[in-house]
Amino acid sequence: MIIRYERNGKIKHGWMVEEDHKVRVIEGDIYKIQTAKPIMTGLELSMDEVTLVAPAAPSKIVCIGANYRDHVSEMAMDLPKEPLMFLKPSTAVVGPGKPIVYPRLTENLHYEGELAVIIKKEAKQVKAEDAEDYILGFTCAIDVTARDLQMKDGQWTRAKGFDTFCPLGPAIAPKLDYQNTRIVTRVNGEVRQDASTSQMVFSVPQLLEAVSAVMTLLPGDIILTGTPAGVGELKPGDEIAVTIEGIGTLATRVVCEE
Amino acid sequence: MIIRYERNGKIKHGWMVEEDHKVRVIEGDIYKIQTAKPIMTGLELSMDEVTLVAPAAPSKIVCIGANYRDHVSEMAMDLPKEPLMFLKPSTAVVGPGKPIVYPRLTENLHYEGELAVIIKKEAKQVKAEDAEDYILGFTCAIDVTARDLQMKDGQWTRAKGFDTFCPLGPAIAPKLDYQNTRIVTRVNGEVRQDASTSQMVFSVPQLLEAVSAVMTLLPGDIILTGTPAGVGELKPGDEIAVTIEGIGTLATRVVCEE
Repeated sequence: MIIRYERNGKIKHGWMVEEDHKVRVIEGDIYKIQTAKPIMTGLELSMDEVTLVAPAAPSKIVCIGANYRDHVSEMAMDLPKEPLMFLKPSTAVVGPGKPIVYPRLTENLHYEGELAVIIKKEAKQVKAEDAEDYILGFTCAIDVTARDLQMKDGQWTRAKGFDTFCPLGPAIAPKLDYQNTRIVTRVNGEVRQDASTSQMVFSVPQLLEAVSAVMTLLPGDIILTGTPAGVGELKPGDEIAVTIEGIGTLATRVVCEE
Repeated sequence: MIIRYERNGKIKHGWMVEEDHKVRVIEGDIYKIQTAKPIMTGLELSMDEVTLVAPAAPSKIVCIGANYRDHVSEMAMDLPKEPLMFLKPSTAVVGPGKPIVYPRLTENLHYEGELAVIIKKEAKQVKAEDAEDYILGFTCAIDVTARDLQMKDGQWTRAKGFDTFCPLGPAIAPKLDYQNTRIVTRVNGEVRQDASTSQMVFSVPQLLEAVSAVMTLLPGDIILTGTPAGVGELKPGDEIAVTIEGIGTLATRVVCEE
């Protein structure tokens, strides 16, 4: 599992083996590695010597709406004929452990647990069958949404664009059975979303083809692949955790705006 | 007028006086200058020694829909009660002279001439009365739109997010009578849009307050302030020019996708 961490003011990538809780420092730029597995410098750090940060610093976050059949039903939407795209600004990203800030402008904050795809190299008009060549790996995300603003505005940018509305992490799984892995969202320990990525309307490779037919994806850019059924409200003080089999758990909490 | 240029593979800012067509190289980081006018290095270049590039490299482009009364009427929309925000990806930006590529995915490409605001420093929850402190300057923009996809998708991201769909330039006017300046769009020399920025529903300071209440704006980020009436179709081969009094003319053309 690849992690991104800060130490002495510098941000680097490391390789973490869950068993020993050690971080092996990765050599060079993770986006330029040509080998199947990253090369290590030999330097090892313990987890308490580093601070985990968001696994990527995307120039853009392309989100896909209405991409799980059962969520489309619960939102009373039509099943999309093509992937429905919208953007979250990069300023919405927060890393593991950083809270979601409940904005004063909303009275109905929702979680949406999602599988995030991290782009490895420049991708323009990529075919679905070549998509895996352009993927660095997968992580967990929450597409935090001010549901009242989403309904009021029509365009979803404001509702989904507040600072802290895109928690990402904890780590990057370079390989994942992304066509059939389990995604579970818990609020205060209680299961709220529990689905398989096999329920996606458009698969990860199809999304990469559709998005890169419109806009060039850059290294570190992120595609959020949509949320399954079971979305619901978050209140200040709530703890939320998204677990994806093969990746791990992204856990955070909701705090009031200062 | 501030320009951004490439020379010997490096991108820098310069000060251009229209009369003599010379570029005076600006000292240091334009976003960190505290003085009223940039400081020059003393080095002068002629225009044919440099290549103009887009005046900024935004991390995000926040666009405002339905912000001129007469355009709201022609689109048969309701006058918005709050600024209607959407995002264009940074990969949509092209500099002066770079063409707009007509995508195969659309059959109805439209121009929308707009005044662009370039953010000078990190802006979070800025009040309208302080907005000018956060503005580096103003430039011309075209919010290129695939009108058929905009209508079909509901969300405007795809329709407005293709590569080359955000021409910017030619220069940055640090000072502008932005509350009342003339904006004219010509296609093949014929006037199509001709309005005053005084017809905006929400003024530039109000937009900065509204956007920064949602997302932190970073140096170089851009707010597109909406388009006046007169939007219409572009065909491959068309030449389009947006002229804003006090800034200059952003001129480009439409080419077919290769």
